Order: sequence, then structure tokens, then C-alpha cells
Amino acid sequence: MGESWSFLDTVESNFRPLVVIELAKGTKEETIEWFTKRIVDKKANGGAQLLIKPLVMENGVENIYLVGASHLRLLLGAETVGLVKECSDNSMRTFTYSSRKTFKDFADDNHNFLTMAECQYIIKHELENLRAKNENMIPGYPQAKLYPGKSIVRRLLTSGILVQIFPLHDREELKKLRHSWYGRVKVGYQPLDDIRCYFGETIALYFGFLEYFTFALIPMAVIGIPYYVFAWEDYDKYVMFATFNLLWSTVILEVWKRICAILTYRWGTLLMKRQFEEPRPGFHGVLGINPVTGREEPVYSSLKRQLRIYLVSLPFVCLCLYFSLYVMMIYFDLEQWALDYHEENESNFSSLMLYVPSIIYAVVIEIMNRIYRYAAEFLTSWENHRLESSYQNHLILKVLVFNFLNCFASLFYIAFVLFDMKLLRQSLATLLITSQILNQFAESLLPYWLQKRYNRRMKKRMCSQKTDRDLSIAEQVNMEKEMGTYLGTFDDYLELFLQFGYVSLFSCVYPLAAVFAVLNNITEIYSDALKMCRVYKRPFAEPTANIGVWQLAFETMSVISVVTNCILIGMSPQVDALFPDSKMDLVLTVALVEHLLLAIKFIMAFVIPDKPRDIQMKLAKLEFESLEALKQQQMKLAAESLKE
Amino acid sequence: MGESWSFLDTVESNFRPLVVIELAKGTKEETIEWFTKRIVDKKANGGAQLLIKPLVMENGVENIYLVGASHLRLLLGAETVGLVKECSDNSMRTFTYSSRKTFKDFADDNHNFLTMAECQYIIKHELENLRAKNENMIPGYPQAKLYPGKSIVRRLLTSGILVQIFPLHDREELKKLRHSWYGRVKVGYQPLDDIRCYFGETIALYFGFLEYFTFALIPMAVIGIPYYVFAWEDYDKYVMFATFNLLWSTVILEVWKRICAILTYRWGTLLMKRQFEEPRPGFHGVLGINPVTGREEPVYSSLKRQLRIYLVSLPFVCLCLYFSLYVMMIYFDLEQWALDYHEENESNFSSLMLYVPSIIYAVVIEIMNRIYRYAAEFLTSWENHRLESSYQNHLILKVLVFNFLNCFASLFYIAFVLFDMKLLRQSLATLLITSQILNQFAESLLPYWLQKRYNRRMKKRMCSQKTDRDLSIAEQVNMEKEMGTYLGTFDDYLELFLQFGYVSLFSCVYPLAAVFAVLNNITEIYSDALKMCRVYKRPFAEPTANIGVWQLAFETMSVISVVTNCILIGMSPQVDALFPDSKMDLVLTVALVEHLLLAIKFIMAFVIPDKPRDIQMKLAKLEFESLEALKQQQMKLAAESLKE
Repeated sequence: MGESWSFLDTVESNFRPLVVIELAKGTKEETIEWFTKRIVDKKANGGAQLLIKPLVMENGVENIYLVGASHLRLLLGAETVGLVKECSDNSMRTFTYSSRKTFKDFADDNHNFLTMAECQYIIKHELENLRAKNENMIPGYPQAKLYPGKSIVRRLLTSGILVQIFPLHDREELKKLRHSWYGRVKVGYQPLDDIRCYFGETIALYFGFLEYFTFALIPMAVIGIPYYVFAWEDYDKYVMFATFNLLWSTVILEVWKRICAILTYRWGTLLMKRQFEEPRPGFHGVLGINPVTGREEPVYSSLKRQLRIYLVSLPFVCLCLYFSLYVMMIYFDLEQWALDYHEENESNFSSLMLYVPSIIYAVVIEIMNRIYRYAAEFLTSWENHRLESSYQNHLILKVLVFNFLNCFASLFYIAFVLFDMKLLRQSLATLLITSQILNQFAESLLPYWLQKRYNRRMKKRMCSQKTDRDLSIAEQVNMEKEMGTYLGTFDDYLELFLQFGYVSLFSCVYPLAAVFAVLNNITEIYSDALKMCRVYKRPFAEPTANIGVWQLAFETMSVISVVTNCILIGMSPQVDALFPDSKMDLVLTVALVEHLLLAIKFIMAFVIPDKPRDIQMKLAKLEFESLEALKQQQMKLAAESLKE
Repeated sequence: MGESWSFLDTVESNFRPLVVIELAKGTKEETIEWFTKRIVDKKANGGAQLLIKPLVMENGVENIYLVGASHLRLLLGAETVGLVKECSDNSMRTFTYSSRKTFKDFADDNHNFLTMAECQYIIKHELENLRAKNENMIPGYPQAKLYPGKSIVRRLLTSGILVQIFPLHDREELKKLRHSWYGRVKVGYQPLDDIRCYFGETIALYFGFLEYFTFALIPMAVIGIPYYVFAWEDYDKYVMFATFNLLWSTVILEVWKRICAILTYRWGTLLMKRQFEEPRPGFHGVLGINPVTGREEPVYSSLKRQLRIYLVSLPFVCLCLYFSLYVMMIYFDLEQWALDYHEENESNFSSLMLYVPSIIYAVVIEIMNRIYRYAAEFLTSWENHRLESSYQNHLILKVLVFNFLNCFASLFYIAFVLFDMKLLRQSLATLLITSQILNQFAESLLPYWLQKRYNRRMKKRMCSQKTDRDLSIAEQVNMEKEMGTYLGTFDDYLELFLQFGYVSLFSCVYPLAAVFAVLNNITEIYSDALKMCRVYKRPFAEPTANIGVWQLAFETMSVISVVTNCILIGMSPQVDALFPDSKMDLVLTVALVEHLLLAIKFIMAFVIPDKPRDIQMKLAKLEFESLEALKQQQMKLAAESLKE
């Protein structure tokens, strides 16, 4: 079994490993043989027509395989997944093998036409689309049922035979990327295009958003500093700051859509057609007929799912929200106790004690968020959604609501029940800074440190004093397979979302929040970059055209912040003093201003086009061309028919 | 020139006239010859390959032509315009000539496979797409410039050589439709599918919406009646009514989207691909290169248009709004004067006089709306929009804003400045009823009466005592060409929009409004049907998948009505009495309730899917099939490439 299984092996002399497949130790011979045969088999026979090579380890155990593909196979795969590439005339077009000559940089011997991330994405796609023909079980494992059309890799994964599939790092490229990304301290933009080439669009878009968001916060931060320095408390200055903030937050979210369109147009994902979504790996049900595809696959009643959502998940989420509020009330008791203690025995220690409840609460919030996250994942998975996208949406909704309440409930309570602006400012600062520090630590530095320690031990054990460059492929695989798996951009966006809440919800009370956010985000860029390059396995590239549900989440937050800021300004003593005779007038004025601001927000969102004019033109041009092509074809047909 | 020009004349023995072309009297011979030649010429030579016959009138003048097409030509045209028809397996598919056998009711000799309205739409499309080749002017008219690709018909229309193109009525079909639509007094739905077959989707969708809206108002009307009868003035009853109204209006607008999807799926327009939009006929500019199509056509700087919009149109609209407010203030002076007069000399006459200002104001509003409409049309046309859709959107926006202010400003003033609920109720009733009567009269009955008188005179002059059935085609054309042109559904939707405003904005003050609206709409259905069948020329069918910008307009109105109703309830003395100590609490409670209602509205709009589940499934199935087909094709290609 030491030789390669590729039938194309004679043709393809330079096998380039792209993806690693790790099978469980002790997987039966017949299973391995069947699986690898399916991978190398011809397309016409229902195979994936890829190349595969076993990796022989020192200890002779053979459970890791390297997967590659011939150049031609990759090009055909690029057509299958619908990659969009730049043509020689600078327009973006869907790649097809027959029109390959019209693409920029294409040459039959240019193996860099497709980026490594794209090649890996293609291989992943081909592997996942390797489907059972007439097998009704995985050979050697009768309990792992198969039915025609079932994805073999997904069944292998769910039955534990396949441990993991992950793409290999390219040490050389990674080094270059690291250098241009965070290797030297510099002022400037991130190399987004390089990040996209290496990690794919989803991750590049996250870093693009992070960078954009940081830049967008700078005006708020700059305007916020003098408020803190000079302790401005004038009514008109506050109103100006808040109004600026509210309109600014609308503008930045709208402008982001445009920038996102520019980026994804350049990357080709804006034009990429949506593929038909297969059931997610965890989905299970009775074997039936899918009404859409007409294929045999597990089906699960939509009614049952609705019942699970509304009768179990919803009450559970409500219970958690209640619990979170209960914890908050305990926090306020603690706070009161600390205050009383400070008043009784005034000392340095007691004044330090004043901050303790907030810090404890911030830590507890973080812990609760994390525990709830597991519960939400379990519940959403139990709801048994057919599609990954629907699973993700339900998970995000659950987590967002809880995290929102958890992070902001105490602030709302302080602001609108206790009316204590001083406490609000103090809590806001403590919460913001604590959560930022905790996040940076838990997300990047801790895993980095653990990984580094592990790597050092590994290297020492394996081959004494080699540098990265000298590592053999076996050693590289061995090291990378033990690295953590990057679970997607969810947590990173969530962090930004909560930060946006801290900055915008109470911006007129604590103008300095934007400054902390900017500072945090600058280090966040570096620590996230470090995390991607050093801590985690390389993730598969995932083409995407926008940041999806997060755009909606940020917009909702900016609507809520209009309401909170208007109320806060209305409650400030300075504004209060403007209406000495009638509190009614005050409230009515505040309500009027709030409605006006909301109206302006919606009109602005409506008026600012989502795509810049030149992108619109380019898209229109492409659409026009495809319509023309269709028309030409029909006219030819019509002319022929009429001639008969 | 008495004979037909059709080259297919020998083949096609039964020429069925579908569309009428009226040229200006005295059009030059060479122009007519050139134009008709282009119409009958083969597709391959750039013609439309249609059939045309001159209509010989009594007086020997020959300026009217009948256009038809062979059955085969129509089928190929149906493919060109992208018609979607039902297949034998009940799925909806885009019609192609090569797959014609798979469609339901298709037979080579079944000339009813395409409805007459569809045939007429196809002919219109083919005529409009008759484009200049190398002509640089219309023969005989050197001032009417042409350039390659310019639509000939549009140039003929703008230079006045072509007076009009309109589709012929089908007397038999129309009679049947009239009978089932409004011929007998009956309780039940309109024959929407028949209306769609005869008038096309846009008009059928309007009547569908009108009917749906009427049904949707019935619950409001039913609940509203006891409020009026028993003069309920309790706080809780009002709040219940208003809350019901607000949520109900959200539900009906969301449910309409679903019903609309069901209708347009059945009609095939939901699946129809958008065609590339050509410049509208009135668009002019310097000859240049269109960046999207790469073709030579007039271009007009977008900057210039923006300047015209923001420096001329916007100030003009603001001026008109100001003027409208000014007129409103005069109305209030008049109102005051009438009140004073009534108090001084109390008599039957004087109490009648109390209603005079409102009636005068209602009439003035109608007049102002109509004058402004012309101004708006002129301005929007002067803004020189390239696309008809963009022209329509700008026109609708201008007219909507003005009409909204014109109709509701006085009510807002009475409600929120004068705080006079009695006057509000009275004004609302007067405005609503007056505008309904005026509309019904001006829109349908007056034109109907005029048309009837004219028809009678025509018939008398032409052929003494024939009935409809005996009318020759020449007489039918002669009569129809003098009928008014239906200008689209704009005014009809606008009327419904304003009515929705009267019903929802102040629903808690005047619950009877819904009753009047329902009564009006029932007669409206009949008078609009009468208008379509009897008063106007048959309009060309226009495929459409939804009611477009009106959905947004109605939704905006329902958001505004949440705000107004909350304020009205807050101002009512009953609610006032609940908060005897603190007006602050009252205002805060009202604001809280308003925000909650708005939040519920948005969540409901988000949660209710826009398309029913079965339509979603059918669409998913179609998408899946087209993806599969593409994949099959690619796999075949791939297999071949790999074999080489």
C-alpha cells in the first residue's frame, strides 16, 4: 500500500499535496481501498478523479493521505464550482474550460492561474460531492448506511471513520503574507488581496470589515477626545456629538456595502452563482423523497422542527434571558454593598473595591456567554435544520439576543431605571475595557502561547534543531493536524458587534468609548492575523459576496442607538434646564427629534445606492451580454425554423 | 396599394388582425412603403416578419394598418419575450419553440395556446425592437434622424408620423368577460384569470389587489361599526381597535405579497426573466457610446440630470408643498368664518354652510392634485431619465409626496395643532366621502358617458342600426381608435393609497372610515371594470411580478399610521384621565407603546415569509433543475476533456 493510487501517476510527475485527509486509526483495509478508489476513479465512473498519496509516518502507521489533482482536473473543477476570474479585457467572467484562453494570466503551463486556496476549495468541493452510487453502506462498516446520492465524505465524517480534512499551509507563501500583514510595524492598509488569495473571501472580508470599521470609528474617536479632556458638559455639544454619531453610523454601514461590492467584484464572488445547497452533515431523518430534487435523502418534517423551535428552544432562550437578568440584579446588590463598604471604611483598598463588582460581572458575563454558546449550538443542532445557512441563522439569532441582553441589560438598567449617569459611564468603561482584554487574551494570546509551546515540544521530539523551511511534508502535516480548527468568523464579528453597541448605544455619555474601540481594533487586527497564521490550521476558503446577517445586525444596533441616545440627551440636566416650565415639552421635543432622526436614517439608507456606479455599470454590462447571447441564439433558431 | 404586403400571404390564408397602427394623415408614400417593408421583412434581413394589411376606409383615406402574425411567428416571439407557460406536468417553464410539445394544451393547430393579449404583447415587442440598420433618417423625413440600433417605431412616434399603436378588442371575448366580471350582480371573486388573459398581468394584479384590499378592510369595517353605532368612547376599546388596526395592516400587506406570488406564479410572470431595458421614447441626448451595451445611442450626463433634479425639481416640489400648506391655512380661516357665521345667525342654511369650507377644500385639493400632476409629469420628463422605470419612480415619488401632504396636512393640523377631535372626525368624513365621489365621477362615469354619447353618434353616422356583433372590422377600428387611452394603473393605485391613509392614519378617531372604504371599493371594482371594458382603448398587456413601488408606499403609510394613532390615543381624554398625576408618565407610556408596536411590526414583516412554502418549493425545484442541467453539461465536457 506504499505506492500512490493515482491512475494518472505516470502523467503527473510533480504531485503537489493540497489537502490532507486523516482517517481514524485502525480503519479497515477494505474501507480505505474503497474510499481511495472512489477518489481517484474517473468522473464517468462516479469518481472524483483526484490524486491521492499515503503519507508514511515514522512509526509506520498509515492513516494520513495527501490529496492533489492534475492541472487540467483543477481547471475543470474551477468551472464546476463556478469560479469567476478576470479576463484579458479586465472584465470579470465565470470561468469555463472552453473559454480559458480569454482569461488574464492563463497559460497551459501556468500553474499559478488558480490560487492555492482556490485549488483547495475545488478539491474540498469535489470530495464533498463524491456520492454513493449503489452502495448501501460503507464497506467494512455496516452501521454506516449509505443511499444513492449521499455524500460519502459526510457519512465518513459523521460515523467517525474520517477524522478531519484540512488544507495544507504553504510555508513560503505564509511567510510572505505574515511579513506584509503584520511582520513590520507600519501605517497602512492590510494586504487584503493577498489575504484573500491565501485564506479565501470570507476571512479576507472579515479583515476588510475590521479595518474599515476601525477607520470609520476614527472620526468618532477624534471628536470624542476633547469631550473627555475638557469635560465638556454643554447641552449643545452633546447633542451635536450624538447627532453626528447617529448619522455617521448610518453612513458607515451604507458605505460598507459599497466597499464590500468593490472588493467582492474584484475577487469575483459578487458574480458567483449560488450553488444548490446540500443538507448539512449533522442533518438526519427518515429516508424519503426530497420534493425539490426528487432524490432519495433523509427528510424531516418542518412541523416537528417548528415545534422544537417554539416549544423548546424559545422557552429555553427566554429562561436564559431571565437568568441573565437575575445575575444582573445580584451584581447591583454587590455594587451597593461595595459602595456601602467604601462609605463606612474609606481607604485605598475600599475605593479599589468599588471596581471589583464591575470586573466580576464582566468576567461572569463572558463566562455566561460562552456557556450559553454551547447550549445554543446544541439546541440549534437538535432543531435539525436541513441547510447549513438556516442552522447558522438560527444559531446567530439565539446567540445575538442573549449576548445583547447580557452585555447591555445592566447598562440599560443603570441608564433608564436608576438614572445614574456617573455609574453608567463607569460601568460602560469597565465593561468595555474588561471584555476587550479578556477577548484578546482568550482568543489569540492564550491559544498562541499553547500552540507555541506544543510546537516547540513537537520539534524537539521530532527532529531536534530544524527551522521551518527544512521541515519535510510529513513533519509539516504532523504539526498542522494537531493545530486548533478555526471555527469561522462568527466570534470575531460578534465581538465587533458588541463593541459597536458599547460605542454607539451610549455614545453621548461616554465619548471615549470610540477611542478604546479604535485602540482595541488596531491590536485586534494584529492578534487576529497572528491567530490565522500561527495558531489555527489553515481553513478552507469560502467564497462569499457580503457579510450576510451581520449587516442587518449592525443596522439594527444603529437603529436602537438612535432611541437610547435621544433618551439619554433628553435626561441630561442641561437639556432639562432648557425646559424649566414643562417636562411635557421636553419629552415631546425628544420624541420628535428621535422620529426625525429615524426618518433621516431610513431615507439615507434608501438614497445611498448599495453599489458604486461603476460596479453597477459593469454588472449591467455582463447581464446585457448574457441576454444578447441568448437572443442571438434564439434568433438563429427562429431564422432556421422560419426557413423550413 | 390595396393589396396586403405580407410575403407569407399565400401561406397564411386566415389573417387575424391583432394590432392597429395609425399613421398621420398625409404620411409620404415612400415612408409607408419603407416602414411596411421593414415590418414584413425576414428576421434575417432585420425585419419583424409580421403580417400587415391596410384598412380601406369609406372615404378612401388609407392611414390605418392592421398587423398580425403567423402562428409560428408568434410562437417564436413568445420565446423571444421569454413567456412562461404551464407544462404538461403542471410546472411552469420558460417557453421555447424546441420544447413546445411539453407544454400543456400545445398542439400545432391550437391557435389558442397563446392568449390574444400575449399575441398582442409579442407583436408590440417585435415592433418596438424593429431597429434601424444603416438608415440615418426616416425616408421622406430628413429631420427624423436614425442611427444603427435606434427603435424605428419610437422615432416614428416621437416625430409624429406614427399617431398610435393599439391592440384590438375581441368583441366576443370582451362580452364574455364583461358578463362574468360585472354583468350580473353577484357575491364572489372577480374572474382574475380571465382579466389577466384579456388585459394582461399589470391590470389583473391591480384588480386582484383592489379585491384583496377590499376583503382585508372588511374586518376593520365590521369592528368599526359598533364604535359608531354605540358611540363607544372607552379608552380600552379605542386602544384595542387601534392596536388591531395597526397589526392588521401589517399582516394584510405581508399576506398580499404571498397572494401576489401565488397569482404571478400561476400567470408565469414570477419566473419571467427581466429584459434589458431600452431608453424610453422621450429620452434625448448627444449621440455617444452606451458604456453598458457598447452601442451608439443618445447619452445624457448623469450629473446634469442630478443638477436638474436637485436644483429645479426639488425646489419646485418644496414650493408646491408650501403653497399647499398656504391653501390649507386659507381653508381654516374659511372654516372659522363659517363657524362665526353659524353662531351669529343660527339657521338651517348656516348649519349647512358649516360643511361648505370642507367641500370647497376637498374640491380644491382634487384640482391642485391634478394640476400638480401635470407639472410633475413635465418636470420628470424634463429631467430626461434614460429608463422608463426610473422615470416612473421619480414621478411616483413627486406625486406621492404632494398628494400625501395635500390630503392629510389639514388633518394633521387639526389633530396635532388644534387638538380638535370633533373637527378632525368631521373633516375626515367630508374629505373621504367627497374625494371618493369626485373620483368615481371623474374617473369612470364621466368618460363613460362621453364615450357612450360619442359611440352613439358614430354608429348613427356610419351604419344606422347595427348591433355590436355586426360591426365590420373597419368600423370597430374606427370606433376604438377614438377611445381614450388608459394611462396605466398609477391613478388607481394612488386612489387606493390615499384611501388607505384615510382609513389607517386616524382609524381610532373615525372607525367608520373603513366602512366607507369598503363600500367605495365595491363600486370601484365595478366602475373600474366598466372603464377598462367600455371607456378606454384596450391597453397592451404588460407582464409584471408584483405591484412594485406601491408595496413600499403602503408599508410606509402603515408605519406612519402607528405613530399618528399612538399620539391620538395618548391625547384622548379617557387615556388622559388614567394618568391624573403626571402627564410625563402618559407621554412616556405612549412613546413606549409606539416603539413596541413598531418593533412588533418590523419583526412580523421579517418573520412572515414573502412567498408561500409551496411556491418556494416550486421555485427551488426549477432552480435546482437548471443547475443540474448546467452541471450535466459541464460534466460531459469535463469527461471529454479528460479523455483526450
